[in-house]
Amino acid sequence: MKKLLAGAVLGVATLSVATVSLAQMKTEDAIKFRQAGYAFMSWNMGKIKAQVVDGAVPYNKDQIVAAANVIAAVANSGMGALYPAGSDKGSGFHETKVKPEFFQNMPEVGKLAGNFNTAANELAAAAATGDQGAIKAAFGKVGESCKACHDQFRAK
Amino acid sequence: MKKLLAGAVLGVATLSVATVSLAQMKTEDAIKFRQAGYAFMSWNMGKIKAQVVDGAVPYNKDQIVAAANVIAAVANSGMGALYPAGSDKGSGFHETKVKPEFFQNMPEVGKLAGNFNTAANELAAAAATGDQGAIKAAFGKVGESCKACHDQFRAK
Repeated sequence: MKKLLAGAVLGVATLSVATVSLAQMKTEDAIKFRQAGYAFMSWNMGKIKAQVVDGAVPYNKDQIVAAANVIAAVANSGMGALYPAGSDKGSGFHETKVKPEFFQNMPEVGKLAGNFNTAANELAAAAATGDQGAIKAAFGKVGESCKACHDQFRAK
Repeated sequence: MKKLLAGAVLGVATLSVATVSLAQMKTEDAIKFRQAGYAFMSWNMGKIKAQVVDGAVPYNKDQIVAAANVIAAVANSGMGALYPAGSDKGSGFHETKVKPEFFQNMPEVGKLAGNFNTAANELAAAAATGDQGAIKAAFGKVGESCKACHDQFRAK
């Protein structure tokens, strides 16, 4: 757990360094990759919701562990590097929805990203226990951390 | 490691079950999510290539562990469920490039998917050791397993 949290912090702390070292990445590629990360997480969030929250699909521990591991791995991947300066506009798989305010509030972004990373790692830890109540609670916190950023920094 | 490999096998073995339970997923969503998974892996493959293969960016163990963990987590996520019948045509983020032959050769697809999962989990294990030679070798095997499927089942 300590290792996971260290990774989470890294994702935020290395934002500026990664942005510099990846300065050659095209803006549209950065936007495409970040959209890919969010879309792939949403598929895996959907699996957890269907099995553990809604009960629409029978609970399968291995599938939920795998889904939570995806969300944690994506959260820990240093996606800050996919928000280079100038990427407040542009199209990856589709036009970006990020608000310009995102790039003017990096301390707030870092705080929200840290909350998301913590929640994602706690979801992975809960999934590994197989305790559906704990998974449901941790899933809720991940959802809240997503929403907190969307509300502030994603256009409707 | 044994646990990781069990997860890898699961991804293939549960293909038909997952396809049934997700029968309500729209074809375009299935295509979008699989394209997202491949795109997000490609960003992370690129980081490993830049740091460990090309040496274009200084090696950072934590970043490479995080990148390899993404690739393994995506590989273990049961993406077979994202290839429902009828998804040989359609558009997610863009028109699918999968060949119809993919859906007519499930034993071969399963074999290639298993090879990819094994290689991805071995890459994650190598990344955790910090042995750049081992990471480079494991990265090469992942690349080969990607190419094996692309050569057979992805349109140019």
